[in-house]
Amino acid sequence: MKIIIVGAIGTIGKKVTEALQGDHEIITAGSKSGDLQVDITSPESIEAFYKQTGNFDALVSTTGSGHFGPLKSTTPADFKKGIDSKLLGQINLVLIGQHYINPKGSFTLTSGILSEDPVVNGVNLSTLNGGLNSFVIGAAIELENDVRINAVSPGVVEDSPGYFPYFPGHIPVTMDKVVVAYIRSVLGAGTGQVIKVY
Amino acid sequence: MKIIIVGAIGTIGKKVTEALQGDHEIITAGSKSGDLQVDITSPESIEAFYKQTGNFDALVSTTGSGHFGPLKSTTPADFKKGIDSKLLGQINLVLIGQHYINPKGSFTLTSGILSEDPVVNGVNLSTLNGGLNSFVIGAAIELENDVRINAVSPGVVEDSPGYFPYFPGHIPVTMDKVVVAYIRSVLGAGTGQVIKVY
Repeated sequence: MKIIIVGAIGTIGKKVTEALQGDHEIITAGSKSGDLQVDITSPESIEAFYKQTGNFDALVSTTGSGHFGPLKSTTPADFKKGIDSKLLGQINLVLIGQHYINPKGSFTLTSGILSEDPVVNGVNLSTLNGGLNSFVIGAAIELENDVRINAVSPGVVEDSPGYFPYFPGHIPVTMDKVVVAYIRSVLGAGTGQVIKVY
Repeated sequence: MKIIIVGAIGTIGKKVTEALQGDHEIITAGSKSGDLQVDITSPESIEAFYKQTGNFDALVSTTGSGHFGPLKSTTPADFKKGIDSKLLGQINLVLIGQHYINPKGSFTLTSGILSEDPVVNGVNLSTLNGGLNSFVIGAAIELENDVRINAVSPGVVEDSPGYFPYFPGHIPVTMDKVVVAYIRSVLGAGTGQVIKVY
């Protein structure tokens, strides 16, 4: 299977890459790293990226960032920056990628626990994650040729202790559980699923 | 109570306005109608709008549109248009409005059933609605001075028969139930709630 992993050197992306690379043809991608580069905030860059990858069987996105900071001082510009990256960046990987994906292929996006279990300073990420979860629910009923789409929604991951102080009372989830959620999406049969890992 | 209703001549907005106007000071607003005009896709317009309204006790938003059309032909530009209107438009009413709202005030936004119960052609609206629901969950834990925020999430409304063909198998909800959801948000004590009317 030809699998594209966008965000392949991220905390989660590198582990997903390790888990899949033995049995599959992997194309790693990132904004500045990987086999190919793509700026997910630019539809033109995404279009150029898929012209380079050619047709593929699975796209895994573990990329995109959001604004983390107090609601009180969050400006429309701060908010939009996260929208353009983690939300529209991942969605545009699908809107454009649907024209390059092979039949029976799959898209796997990354949302997160803050969609339903918020933390202080996390309102932008809550929004992005909630939007992504509903996007996959909506897109799954329209994708043709048996193409599937899911979101993996992780809690704070054990490999990111720097985030723990911002998630009081959250029990960090093990990376093993997060990685198998991506495997389930790529190699399983589900679609329109929000695979919660928490 | 001084209540701003943005989208006050819309199908839902006009009924909410009717229900509240007897007992409260109402400022109606719309892109081209109402006591004051505001372009919710422009943060500058929203800022100018609040300078005109002055401090207020409640903001009800029944405004914003999304792209309705096949996933297959939806472009990043189509998708962004809905993001800028129904999602960021309503969110920016809060980000900017938080600096003008009185203590114990409330924000009430409008999402919709497509966040969790999608229809064909509705993936953009699913995304906007899911993002809005998670926004209010995230914002509620940070708003200060006992300011509250909720989203009303209606199903397809009986007053909009033109939409029925696009919602096969959906049972239209009565306008009475939709209106009381807004009343509950404005006059009740709840916060961080997604008030589902379906």
